[in-house]
Amino acid sequence: MRATVIHGPHDIRLEQVPDPVIQEPTDAVIRTVAACVCGSDLWRYRGVAPVKRPARIGHEYVGVVESVGDAVTTVRPGQFVVGPFYSCDGTCPHCHAGFSSVCDHLDWYDGCQADAIRIPQADGTLVALDERPDDALVPSVLALSDVMGTGWHAAEMAAVRPGMTVVVVGDGAVGLCGVIAAKVKGAERIIVISRNAPRQALARELGATDIVAERGQTGVERVRELTGGIGADAVLECVGTADSIKDALDHARPGAMVGFVGVPHDSDPSIATMFARNVGLRGGMAPVRNYLPELLPLVLDGSIDPGRVFDLTLPLDQVAEAYAAMDERRAIKVLLRP
Amino acid sequence: MRATVIHGPHDIRLEQVPDPVIQEPTDAVIRTVAACVCGSDLWRYRGVAPVKRPARIGHEYVGVVESVGDAVTTVRPGQFVVGPFYSCDGTCPHCHAGFSSVCDHLDWYDGCQADAIRIPQADGTLVALDERPDDALVPSVLALSDVMGTGWHAAEMAAVRPGMTVVVVGDGAVGLCGVIAAKVKGAERIIVISRNAPRQALARELGATDIVAERGQTGVERVRELTGGIGADAVLECVGTADSIKDALDHARPGAMVGFVGVPHDSDPSIATMFARNVGLRGGMAPVRNYLPELLPLVLDGSIDPGRVFDLTLPLDQVAEAYAAMDERRAIKVLLRP
Repeated sequence: MRATVIHGPHDIRLEQVPDPVIQEPTDAVIRTVAACVCGSDLWRYRGVAPVKRPARIGHEYVGVVESVGDAVTTVRPGQFVVGPFYSCDGTCPHCHAGFSSVCDHLDWYDGCQADAIRIPQADGTLVALDERPDDALVPSVLALSDVMGTGWHAAEMAAVRPGMTVVVVGDGAVGLCGVIAAKVKGAERIIVISRNAPRQALARELGATDIVAERGQTGVERVRELTGGIGADAVLECVGTADSIKDALDHARPGAMVGFVGVPHDSDPSIATMFARNVGLRGGMAPVRNYLPELLPLVLDGSIDPGRVFDLTLPLDQVAEAYAAMDERRAIKVLLRP
Repeated sequence: MRATVIHGPHDIRLEQVPDPVIQEPTDAVIRTVAACVCGSDLWRYRGVAPVKRPARIGHEYVGVVESVGDAVTTVRPGQFVVGPFYSCDGTCPHCHAGFSSVCDHLDWYDGCQADAIRIPQADGTLVALDERPDDALVPSVLALSDVMGTGWHAAEMAAVRPGMTVVVVGDGAVGLCGVIAAKVKGAERIIVISRNAPRQALARELGATDIVAERGQTGVERVRELTGGIGADAVLECVGTADSIKDALDHARPGAMVGFVGVPHDSDPSIATMFARNVGLRGGMAPVRNYLPELLPLVLDGSIDPGRVFDLTLPLDQVAEAYAAMDERRAIKVLLRP
């Protein structure tokens, strides 16, 4: 069969390779109906990521099942299927909790820009359609294998809710799918950061209400103007550079979430850790005044007793000793009585 | 009256200062019933933060209203009040959205470790109790002015829900209040990172079910063992160093949130930005397989059309041109047909 092989920067070749075969009883082999090129495939194409030896490439596909291993129970030959850009077991705690992209048995494909593909862990990975879709729908089903699901993840992680004002940073395929996701989730206003006229037009067709062409501080000020000085209720970061992540954080109003799905390139190590493990981080100076009406009744009715953290009480005129006791860790926290 | 003044590292003095007076019609003056020393006060005491000139210090208090300005309507002389460690207007969009700590008119106190305190923006800041609380409750009401609300914020931002396994990083007053918060929110298991025996004991009394004394990778492995290899459902970061934030991220299971309230000291710039603006960040490689069952019907019924991102379709044997078109931004995304 034919398969795409990358040999080095700007060196993509379609070559004859052996047909894929069932290697494990959990495998399926599918005949490709459509595949595509991902922005992340361009890293090797551009030489940003190294190509040490010729390698198969591509991770997005839809197709028809040709054969399955003995252990496969959920798909059968002849079915039209779509799968994510990775393979997962579908049974581990992370898959069950909704984070199959951090599956305990995460696996990758041999290269999907090809006539046929071997899919490991077929039961956990593939979703069969009831029937072969109309050919006009194939591109949209294919988009679900990566970019649409990725734009959706940005909107999920940003906690987009009906009525919100959402900023989408990035006008690539993922950013545009983020616009679709924000619209489906009921965003009232969708501001897309884009300086590319055709992409601006497509963003508007897909649901964008405003376009901001500026980046950096000027773009942040534009978004602030558009949001009455408040900032966005949710931000979708679909680029992955340090600059775009910084802009995304600055577009958000206090308390908002930035959902980020652009693979971080040159960003802080903590951001790379968060991305790799799909772990979120949220906090800051506590809005204690907002919590007082909720917490005061719990103190007054004895439900909670946070006063226990005071393990030393001193008169105000011994305040210097209060500092010394905490400094030397002789006390957790000192209460002062005037 | 008497007020605490910091003159330099390890130089805390109680001095005679003028009584506070109403300066703005929105002010209140309260007679202090109790105040306390905050871990953040120790930064200047230890010389970590500079003391350029002698300065009043302290930001936690409960007290009785002595006088109010003409514009104050929600509190009156004689009432027992508590307020957050900052002053806020209570009317701006951020206050209304639950983030008064990023109030458009955020203000600070002159120093609360004193016989009396001037409170700016009294209507937005103070909460009056129906009656003066029993003296035994005063420490717990005082704790609401900062540490309990801060521990609560960590639990809110970490999205603690009933039944969860929660890790609390930090055994200071805020960490211990984080334990209380996690318990109130129904956490089933609360693992506290602490190597201080008395604090371990207090943590257990307040609701901790497990203690891990190790930090760094060893501590992370201990938590992993305690959670069946999965990691914590939510993590409360109550320290603020780069190491503790790293540990907190590593304790979390994929998909989990880390709520962070320890003021970041030596961490990445993006983390400082997030903290300063109370903006969260969450994402990673999209769990596309989990989204397929939700998104596929939307494609098949025509609700969404993410296939629009393919603005070029080529036969597989022109895959090299597909890469070139995307590389040169002639196409957003290229679909390949075998």
